[in-house]
Amino acid sequence: MAGPFEHVLTGLKVLDFTRALAGPTVTRMFAEMGADVIKVESAPNGDLTRRMSKLRGERSLYYVQQNLGKKSLCVDLRDPRGMALIAALVPKVDVVVENFKPGTFDAMGLGYDRLKLLREDIILCSISALGQSGPLAHLPGYDFIAQGYSGVTSLIGDAGGTPYIPPVGMGDVSTGVHGALAVLAALRHRDRTGRGQHIDVGLLDVYYHCHEVTVHQASASGGEIKPTRNGPHLNYICPAGVFRAAEGWVVIMAFLHHWRDLCAAMGRPDLVDDPVFGNDAGRLAHRDEVVALLEAWLATFSSRDAAIEHLHRHQVPASPVLSIEETLTHPHLRARGTVRRITDPVAGSFDIPGMPLKFSEFPDDLPLTAPTMGQHNAEVLREFLGLPEEEIAALEAAQVLQQKPH
Amino acid sequence: MAGPFEHVLTGLKVLDFTRALAGPTVTRMFAEMGADVIKVESAPNGDLTRRMSKLRGERSLYYVQQNLGKKSLCVDLRDPRGMALIAALVPKVDVVVENFKPGTFDAMGLGYDRLKLLREDIILCSISALGQSGPLAHLPGYDFIAQGYSGVTSLIGDAGGTPYIPPVGMGDVSTGVHGALAVLAALRHRDRTGRGQHIDVGLLDVYYHCHEVTVHQASASGGEIKPTRNGPHLNYICPAGVFRAAEGWVVIMAFLHHWRDLCAAMGRPDLVDDPVFGNDAGRLAHRDEVVALLEAWLATFSSRDAAIEHLHRHQVPASPVLSIEETLTHPHLRARGTVRRITDPVAGSFDIPGMPLKFSEFPDDLPLTAPTMGQHNAEVLREFLGLPEEEIAALEAAQVLQQKPH
Repeated sequence: MAGPFEHVLTGLKVLDFTRALAGPTVTRMFAEMGADVIKVESAPNGDLTRRMSKLRGERSLYYVQQNLGKKSLCVDLRDPRGMALIAALVPKVDVVVENFKPGTFDAMGLGYDRLKLLREDIILCSISALGQSGPLAHLPGYDFIAQGYSGVTSLIGDAGGTPYIPPVGMGDVSTGVHGALAVLAALRHRDRTGRGQHIDVGLLDVYYHCHEVTVHQASASGGEIKPTRNGPHLNYICPAGVFRAAEGWVVIMAFLHHWRDLCAAMGRPDLVDDPVFGNDAGRLAHRDEVVALLEAWLATFSSRDAAIEHLHRHQVPASPVLSIEETLTHPHLRARGTVRRITDPVAGSFDIPGMPLKFSEFPDDLPLTAPTMGQHNAEVLREFLGLPEEEIAALEAAQVLQQKPH
Repeated sequence: MAGPFEHVLTGLKVLDFTRALAGPTVTRMFAEMGADVIKVESAPNGDLTRRMSKLRGERSLYYVQQNLGKKSLCVDLRDPRGMALIAALVPKVDVVVENFKPGTFDAMGLGYDRLKLLREDIILCSISALGQSGPLAHLPGYDFIAQGYSGVTSLIGDAGGTPYIPPVGMGDVSTGVHGALAVLAALRHRDRTGRGQHIDVGLLDVYYHCHEVTVHQASASGGEIKPTRNGPHLNYICPAGVFRAAEGWVVIMAFLHHWRDLCAAMGRPDLVDDPVFGNDAGRLAHRDEVVALLEAWLATFSSRDAAIEHLHRHQVPASPVLSIEETLTHPHLRARGTVRRITDPVAGSFDIPGMPLKFSEFPDDLPLTAPTMGQHNAEVLREFLGLPEEEIAALEAAQVLQQKPH
């Protein structure tokens, strides 16, 4: 069931040296859209995430979630016979993706210049934490290391208090999607000009890319505006943030023209054109009072959800702060496939995030599964390189190729 | 200076009906890669962000940041002559992008079925908060509304305390990049099959897509694991999170094999194989002690940056929690172009986030500027539709076309 299936990227061939999260997201996005992805895993252990989230025996649910639809080729990369297989595969693919620490892929003999000798129009996509260039490029990195450098962490929390990190793969996954976009753009360029290239996408750049107003505010004000964390509310419109409700929390965004609708919902038409509360500047200057007003009103409802229902009837942009548990059974998230149930051949059924791109020509998610380690050794070498069964068997016997049942 | 320039997407033509942040990010990414983007702004006010971040006279720096490299066509869309211009432009472009509330674009007479009559292989990309389908699709939405529904907000903050929102455009910008990826994938499909399609990308799906372990943990444990906010530290490896240092905060990720390096940095070789602190499970079970140990040690340095320098010398993944102000002058962010200085023809020079995708064939950012409202009315109608100057002048006189100097 590893494909290839008919979808938007059918026919695209990718050689994937990625591990963990950001890199594997690039190639999973390709697999979710029908590309043929060969994931090269380094024997004897494979992707380091095969050790994580073992909630069902020896199978890593982390690995499953991030490697749907890929073929696993598990090779000893320190053995010259293993590296010979890789060198033979490069000319057969359109794209190579890697997310080693900058310099490592070069040191393995697989840098862009070497790949270009193997296939002149190859597209190499390198994913890293802090980028392939600049004084910090050599540092070891993870999502939150890049987040700290980006200034994003400094914006989350109370004024003067501990900064928080969002414990999700926001930077990693978004970086993967940025990388996938760059690869498809480079492929379009190749189609037009015949030229390949090397792409460099770093998590730090991706996090920084997400700054909405803070960078230009700090810069254009000549340092007068010093953006920092300031509680669970935005600092340039009001009300906009997280509010306490009966038995829970809600997000309300009722600035500008939405204020009128919120006043109607609260039964306070007198506040629509109030000299203080009737505009965003006044509300920002009296934010504590606005928050107290809203929270006192929210407390009059029997529950968080009753308040949300009332706000929605008045067209006020509002949402409950759902727990992860609540998202799993929410009718909208189920109807959209935002949360999807998969059935893994080893670990059985469980939920993971859905495919976030919806194409009218392909309304159903592809029935993808993740590979066990080395599951496609023989298939890949037969189909891509035409290797005879005896030779494959000899490589298995010599442990140049390896396999595990999970 | 609106291009088109030679870059990876040169030749691609896009008609852009987006406003605010997520939609404009789709088309800005295209413009940053050399596509020809016509931004249709609805007369008389144009994009609503033209009212925001007016730090330099009447020019919106928000608009500038999000609309680099686009051409502005400002049209009265309630006038049949305005809609006739739009209908004439559709056959001349490859892609249409919009981010109205679901249903609005249809009601304007520009739904996918109508566009297909104008150009059969058109690709329409619709961006929204909660998606085009499902029981909540009709609700008004913003970034943080989607974030509340996604479960992400519930994970940020202290156990039992207020959940925080990261006040950056994380969901919006990432959704824009997801949308741009979907469009290029659909174009590849069109190149192969001749078929267009309608793409649906919602912020809620994108936020949910970023869950790293929480969704499969909650689901596969049968509800035994209930992921929630739990301070500035990750809940499945340790130490991993934000720590107080002298005069500031740092991110340290020293789990698994990094623990040994951290012990060396701290001069505590005795802790490497300590029965309690020698592995992630033990450290997680005694997290408060680990945090206290690290923060006591960090307090011995004269500054945050002295601690970071020492940690880096020992190869421990670590970063300072930089303020926005500090990012603007950081040598690495400047060297990478993570922060870039632009010179706007109206507002002058200031900094915005850099182009996050680095292509070896195009090492320099394109010299893009953002348009004043209606700046390219005549140019677009002349070049795309061959309209004579008199006809353009008549449409301007009738206010079907409008302009402003900022």
